[in-house]
Amino acid sequence: MKTIVQKYGGSSVATTEKILKVADTLIKRKKEDNRIVVVVSAMGDTTDDLIGLTKQISKNPDKREMDALLATGEMISASLLSMALIEKGYDAVSYTAYQIGIKTTGLYGRSLIDDIDVSRVEKSLSEGKIVIVAGFQGVNEDGDITTLGRGGSDTSAVALAVKLQGECEIYTDVDGIYSCDPRKFKEAKKLEFIDYEEMLELASLGAQVMHSRSVELAQKYNIPIYVGLSCSDIKGTIIKGVKDMNLESKSVTGLATCDEDISITVKNLPSNINILSDLFERVARKKINIDMISQTAPLGEKVNVSFTIPHSDLDECLDILRDFTIEDNIHIDENITKFSLVGLGMKNTTGVAASLFRIFSEAQIEVKMITTSEIRITCAIKNDDKIKAIDLAAKQFNL
Amino acid sequence: MKTIVQKYGGSSVATTEKILKVADTLIKRKKEDNRIVVVVSAMGDTTDDLIGLTKQISKNPDKREMDALLATGEMISASLLSMALIEKGYDAVSYTAYQIGIKTTGLYGRSLIDDIDVSRVEKSLSEGKIVIVAGFQGVNEDGDITTLGRGGSDTSAVALAVKLQGECEIYTDVDGIYSCDPRKFKEAKKLEFIDYEEMLELASLGAQVMHSRSVELAQKYNIPIYVGLSCSDIKGTIIKGVKDMNLESKSVTGLATCDEDISITVKNLPSNINILSDLFERVARKKINIDMISQTAPLGEKVNVSFTIPHSDLDECLDILRDFTIEDNIHIDENITKFSLVGLGMKNTTGVAASLFRIFSEAQIEVKMITTSEIRITCAIKNDDKIKAIDLAAKQFNL
Repeated sequence: MKTIVQKYGGSSVATTEKILKVADTLIKRKKEDNRIVVVVSAMGDTTDDLIGLTKQISKNPDKREMDALLATGEMISASLLSMALIEKGYDAVSYTAYQIGIKTTGLYGRSLIDDIDVSRVEKSLSEGKIVIVAGFQGVNEDGDITTLGRGGSDTSAVALAVKLQGECEIYTDVDGIYSCDPRKFKEAKKLEFIDYEEMLELASLGAQVMHSRSVELAQKYNIPIYVGLSCSDIKGTIIKGVKDMNLESKSVTGLATCDEDISITVKNLPSNINILSDLFERVARKKINIDMISQTAPLGEKVNVSFTIPHSDLDECLDILRDFTIEDNIHIDENITKFSLVGLGMKNTTGVAASLFRIFSEAQIEVKMITTSEIRITCAIKNDDKIKAIDLAAKQFNL
Repeated sequence: MKTIVQKYGGSSVATTEKILKVADTLIKRKKEDNRIVVVVSAMGDTTDDLIGLTKQISKNPDKREMDALLATGEMISASLLSMALIEKGYDAVSYTAYQIGIKTTGLYGRSLIDDIDVSRVEKSLSEGKIVIVAGFQGVNEDGDITTLGRGGSDTSAVALAVKLQGECEIYTDVDGIYSCDPRKFKEAKKLEFIDYEEMLELASLGAQVMHSRSVELAQKYNIPIYVGLSCSDIKGTIIKGVKDMNLESKSVTGLATCDEDISITVKNLPSNINILSDLFERVARKKINIDMISQTAPLGEKVNVSFTIPHSDLDECLDILRDFTIEDNIHIDENITKFSLVGLGMKNTTGVAASLFRIFSEAQIEVKMITTSEIRITCAIKNDDKIKAIDLAAKQFNL
């Protein structure tokens, strides 16, 4: 008998009608003789509505109370789904994090799952019950309710799959993982498989299908994750480890773009490592997320350095830069798109960067900055070149 | 240092604006050097809204899941109130029933509080915190969330006051307990004090200010309860034991009327105790709440019996009666009002019934049925006589 841990996102349980539909889907899987555990998110906009209430009370709501408040959203959907299953004649039981000992550590609002005591879940499963678990939440060592951060229900599901030695299925409002964003490139191909590492790179580049931490956790325990459309027969994507994949698989799996950053170039800085590290330390202290950094070779005793930051952090970043140089030396470029290719095959296949630069140069797409990781290459290009770049790269690398 | 357990009803925390107002009131009491524990109900219509969701899922929702669902309402208001206090610079902490071990026994939807482990509350109080507790809920020995029934937050508050050896204050949308319903009799007087027994009789007669069980619990441990308008300086009513009251207090404290019952008279039943007990047993099995019963002296071998039932149970009741007698013997009177006087003084003062019957007879108010308890007298009278009866009795007994 297989144990299957399914997770349904907020849009999949947004209304009672949708909850009843999820119940039907679960019953189908239950009939196939499976042990079913279901993790649910809060219904639709519940979490946003609750946050809205807190804003009427406090500009900076207490974090402990915020977590206690937000955790109720998932409790509501869990008990409603259990009710729906019981109404349809199936034995079910809903549990909060408290009830099944989902222990967390770390900060409110973004705590980490430390352990889960699955004995109560195991007991209910052995009684033939479908077990519904309120996602996104845990209880810390002080007995306080904590939440795992936005999208944390994915992590709840993977953690339960690890502890129950089961399979994990994430149901959402997209039908799988695509090589590129289908809203940006119509001919984007859905992937049958994707490696954990590739998925993590894509997630960090803005593909918001999966909570990164859940992928890391699945990777650590080598639990495959199925990602697909809820209540549908359309085949989704399986995230799993490379040893399960065809090693001859193509070099580039995915493509992602991000328009939210701008680049800043600071000219004529003294070529002194202390000054640069001081600069970046002060930026980091303001929690400004610097992404691409490139530095040209020093000209005499001066050096030029460029980096990208989110547009929203510009003013704060400029305040810092003015302590290091005069206004004339600071150049801002808002007209950039970060363009990334991701592929486990890039580890073994040389020439991905070379092909990319060749097609860009043929199309006269200017590459302003470049950063790379073992399985990723990211270029900053002009916004205007984005569509052309996606189109060319998708064709070149068969995405 | 006094420990004060306050309870705020749903209407008192219906909006974030009202929650902020409650926070201000709490801060005032805190500054008077008190240890403050606050029990909150769910915001406004939250509970009804949640019940509305379940109706879209099931006609007869699973009771365990219903309790798990409804308990979230109080968790939400508790964390928002705590947030409001912290925003205003006061240290506060919200707790669910789980977190402070409010242990319950009995059925879902109407469980009883078995015990509360107040050590966590005591610890927070000793740290100077205002403690907010989600009312209406507990956890049973299986670790399941249960609710205490509608109005159960009153009981949560009294139980906490018992365990913390504190005082109990119930804040609601009425400014105290009245001798009669001020909506029915404009000159109704607010009581400064009322005895537990009197309050219980009034509550059972439809005065919905207080949850009866909370009054019973307060009586058992002799905890006075203050009932008053939330966030107001208007003086309310104290419910307490007779030994604290002036024994010379007036004989009749309160007056209540109820129009929701009808009376049924069954004529010519065989004068046989087995038949009567069989009849009432079958009615009871249908959960029909028979209230006043009167039987005339047997005429030969036949007997007439009258009783009152809620109007809504008429059809079901008639189905049963038809098994015992023919249609012609069944008489229904829908034109009745139950009129009750309540007063601890009735135990010692004779003549309350006599005075009542005298003023009724002078005013030609027909008394159709009578029942009494030690501290209550109830008459069934015609609907049309209600206003006249309230007016006369209020004057006669100075209510």
